[in-house]
Amino acid sequence: MTTTTAYTVSGMTCGHCVAAVTEEVMKLDGVTEVQITLVEGGESPVAVTSDAPLTDAAVRAAVDEAGYQLVGASA
Amino acid sequence: MTTTTAYTVSGMTCGHCVAAVTEEVMKLDGVTEVQITLVEGGESPVAVTSDAPLTDAAVRAAVDEAGYQLVGASA
Repeated sequence: MTTTTAYTVSGMTCGHCVAAVTEEVMKLDGVTEVQITLVEGGESPVAVTSDAPLTDAAVRAAVDEAGYQLVGASA
Repeated sequence: MTTTTAYTVSGMTCGHCVAAVTEEVMKLDGVTEVQITLVEGGESPVAVTSDAPLTDAAVRAAVDEAGYQLVGASA
């Protein structure tokens, strides 16, 4: 089953930031797509598509690893 | 002879941007050090130290390659 979950990440300011978050979240088991709409310096929506169960904690850890903060999850 | 030249680069917003500009300018022949003071979204001073003659055009091209704009040179 493929599911897409919406998150919000703060602190990204440019395409490099988007690439860093995308890279870390894509490493999670089952994740097939990460779509980020950059809101420079604000709260950017991040849609994560996965074909395996994904926990908010795992996404939070990946975002943190990239150097940013998960501020919202609307699973 | 080692010389340090001051430039100004616009458009950098985060540490990734600084790393991208540093990487490209460090590729230039003779460059031994690149020091950038990030002014987020503004005009950031960039000091380039080189032990070989360096042209503004070469620095401009490197900054452009990284995706940013050289807006000032005070050679």
